[in-house]
Amino acid sequence: MAKVLTSQAEDFPRWYQDVVSKAQLAENGPAKGQQVIRPTGFALWERMVDELDERIKETGTENASFPLLIPESYFAKEADHVEGFAPEVWMVTHGGGKELEEKLAVRPTSEAIIGEYMAKWTKSYRDLPLLLNQWANVMRYELRTRLFLRSSEFLWQEGHTAHASYEDAHAFTLRILHDVYADFMENVLAVPVLRGIKTVDERFAGALNTFCVEAFMRDNKALQMGTSHELGQNFSKAFNIQFQGEDGQQHLAWTTSWGTSTRMVGGLIMCHGDDSGLRVPPNLAPVQAHVMVVKDSDEVHAEAERIHAALKAAGVRAKLDLRGDVAFGRRAVDAELKGYPVRIEIGPRDLKEGQATIARRIAGTKEPVALDGVVKAVEAALEEDQKALFDEALDRRVSATREVATLAEAVEVAQTGLARVPWSAVGVEGEAEAAKSGVTVRCLQREDGSVPDTLEEEGLVAYLARAY
Amino acid sequence: MAKVLTSQAEDFPRWYQDVVSKAQLAENGPAKGQQVIRPTGFALWERMVDELDERIKETGTENASFPLLIPESYFAKEADHVEGFAPEVWMVTHGGGKELEEKLAVRPTSEAIIGEYMAKWTKSYRDLPLLLNQWANVMRYELRTRLFLRSSEFLWQEGHTAHASYEDAHAFTLRILHDVYADFMENVLAVPVLRGIKTVDERFAGALNTFCVEAFMRDNKALQMGTSHELGQNFSKAFNIQFQGEDGQQHLAWTTSWGTSTRMVGGLIMCHGDDSGLRVPPNLAPVQAHVMVVKDSDEVHAEAERIHAALKAAGVRAKLDLRGDVAFGRRAVDAELKGYPVRIEIGPRDLKEGQATIARRIAGTKEPVALDGVVKAVEAALEEDQKALFDEALDRRVSATREVATLAEAVEVAQTGLARVPWSAVGVEGEAEAAKSGVTVRCLQREDGSVPDTLEEEGLVAYLARAY
Repeated sequence: MAKVLTSQAEDFPRWYQDVVSKAQLAENGPAKGQQVIRPTGFALWERMVDELDERIKETGTENASFPLLIPESYFAKEADHVEGFAPEVWMVTHGGGKELEEKLAVRPTSEAIIGEYMAKWTKSYRDLPLLLNQWANVMRYELRTRLFLRSSEFLWQEGHTAHASYEDAHAFTLRILHDVYADFMENVLAVPVLRGIKTVDERFAGALNTFCVEAFMRDNKALQMGTSHELGQNFSKAFNIQFQGEDGQQHLAWTTSWGTSTRMVGGLIMCHGDDSGLRVPPNLAPVQAHVMVVKDSDEVHAEAERIHAALKAAGVRAKLDLRGDVAFGRRAVDAELKGYPVRIEIGPRDLKEGQATIARRIAGTKEPVALDGVVKAVEAALEEDQKALFDEALDRRVSATREVATLAEAVEVAQTGLARVPWSAVGVEGEAEAAKSGVTVRCLQREDGSVPDTLEEEGLVAYLARAY
Repeated sequence: MAKVLTSQAEDFPRWYQDVVSKAQLAENGPAKGQQVIRPTGFALWERMVDELDERIKETGTENASFPLLIPESYFAKEADHVEGFAPEVWMVTHGGGKELEEKLAVRPTSEAIIGEYMAKWTKSYRDLPLLLNQWANVMRYELRTRLFLRSSEFLWQEGHTAHASYEDAHAFTLRILHDVYADFMENVLAVPVLRGIKTVDERFAGALNTFCVEAFMRDNKALQMGTSHELGQNFSKAFNIQFQGEDGQQHLAWTTSWGTSTRMVGGLIMCHGDDSGLRVPPNLAPVQAHVMVVKDSDEVHAEAERIHAALKAAGVRAKLDLRGDVAFGRRAVDAELKGYPVRIEIGPRDLKEGQATIARRIAGTKEPVALDGVVKAVEAALEEDQKALFDEALDRRVSATREVATLAEAVEVAQTGLARVPWSAVGVEGEAEAAKSGVTVRCLQREDGSVPDTLEEEGLVAYLARAY
């Protein structure tokens, strides 16, 4: 098949750009760092939204919508928050042809406006927990941008919750990490993730603790796929989020925030893509089975339509391509690029033999299947290949991980892999040292791989890598 | 039941504000005309999005995402468009602490940026039709704002399509009007709509023709619920959207755009709400059946849970309220306010009789039903009440409509109803005259009620009303 992409081995960043462009996933927008997400890319995001939204709602969280523009004065209320975000803000100064009395920031994140409303809505312990989420666009001024991975505007969900106690807030932060984020990423995206806690340096501006899920890309760099922040009472103090407790006294609430974004599309591409293009895990794929006619004929069209209908009836997300007038090779290359899991090819020769050809993007096989066995074969392939993709990614990460004892070794390993090293051997100073070599501490875990409650725990281990 | 709302007869605008506030649908944001949509209100919008998105996709349209900020120079490309929208624009002048080289407008609508990309993507007639839609937030500077109905920021979908011929573009504009918008509004929202064409004065800035769906509110004012614009070649010329035709020559494409917004939530409230609050049509309702315990007891809880599960298993969107410790009256008032169609009340006395009480928000009835008949009774009620709500709204509009012959009569009727008058008796000058009395031409239809292809058709009739 004709080579349409730069190979990963040759130039990974260029391979990435090629996939994004040639699979028609996204393009640059007119202004700095903007992105246009095209239908093929957006369909991936839509499926992510569906799956995540379902899991978010299962936690009892409800969706809402808060304003895009945040008065500058709101940011000033939480000192660390404003310090962290002020340099990245896009600012609206005029409306309706006149200069505004107060400048409005295009939200880089919404703690500073949602906090204001939480304070209004939280009167009694009976109002808690208050569990909110919004699907929204946010903007951050970025100097170096890359489609999906780092852009001045991106789409995301941001959860914001208020709780009556530290324990409840803490547990909820971790519930989001495990039951929503990690579950979605591992079981739908087929992307294995490390779950851990961020160092002070990598923590969200204004948070007590930031928990994260980190994935490992095919170029041996890490990608932060999502974060869940325990905000303690920092924002409650700043925005006066108080409630009357069961004891009749006023208390400050404990808040959390957590987010995942269109960045995950970039992670999906770099975790699973190969030299022929994207490989989309079946559980995510907007198109799981792509029914293609090889050449036009009435019989071929009729059979393709029958198979397409049978797949849909079986609950498979199927797409029908009857464009026999477009060269088959060109369509096949495009299908490989877009990476939908299963392709069912039907041509006059297949029909004569009473079969269709099933090409599996993930297994890489291409085999004839009897016409009446197509649906079953597709279902089996989807299940197998979901697992295969996850196992492959996990194997790659495990093989690239080295257990080391010193900072120097960790930095060395992290140039081309993932270093696991006692946090005591790194520390805040070692972290700054590693940064000089382009290596960061991705997260800290307990020795047994579980997520620590705080950075103060003894005996933590650190994962170091280069990262996006 | 305690009166919690201003009555509609007493003060309709205040009744509206009361419903929005007390049913916890939305609140004002901090800056001018902003709105915060709370979970109860947002759940209505989410259901609208689901239903509309399904219909939009059935037309072959695909979702995408374009940047929020549009370079000022893009607007200048289509003269009427910039003239219409420039006064309403919110402007970003700074990013990352520095003044931008070119000001960026927060999109008031996206023709001016999507046109730029359509030009890139449309090379051959094979690329057409190009059918795109985005779900997005937009901002327009407004002096007088009202939650949901007119706000500086709102959520909407905007469709943008390019076609090879006038005929194809025209047909698609009307397909959206009928099969997507009117179908959704009448069959899901239970809001009867007039379908017609807008006058030059009410037309979208830059369009050839604007088609619309207009609804009639309980205070006898009209509300524009959605518009579908035939843009001709105006934007193709401005943005150079060309394609190579089957004839090998370059041609300008024919484009359309169409939108519906969170404004529909306001329309829903004002079309169906009564003095006890909102009444949500069953086909829309995020909660169709609200299972409430009257008082706490193990048996009551167990039975409520059983009924809730049975309803869900039958495909009913059901919610369970086990808060027997909160006064039943308070919860019942809240349920009426939020207007979910069916309430199933279960108390110890009901259980003893082997029954539950079904309260229907739309029919206004409250009757005992045997426990094993609850699911069937709920399903029947939902179907009946969807129809009842539509019929009621249609009857109201029909009763409020008067057929008249002159402009003077039309303006008179339109003070408290809907006037139907020959367009020849009004005309552009009559339209300006009517505006002085706060009356506008909502749309033009053919004599037989069908939608004209252009304003130039003979014998059109006009609907005049006061409007939001």
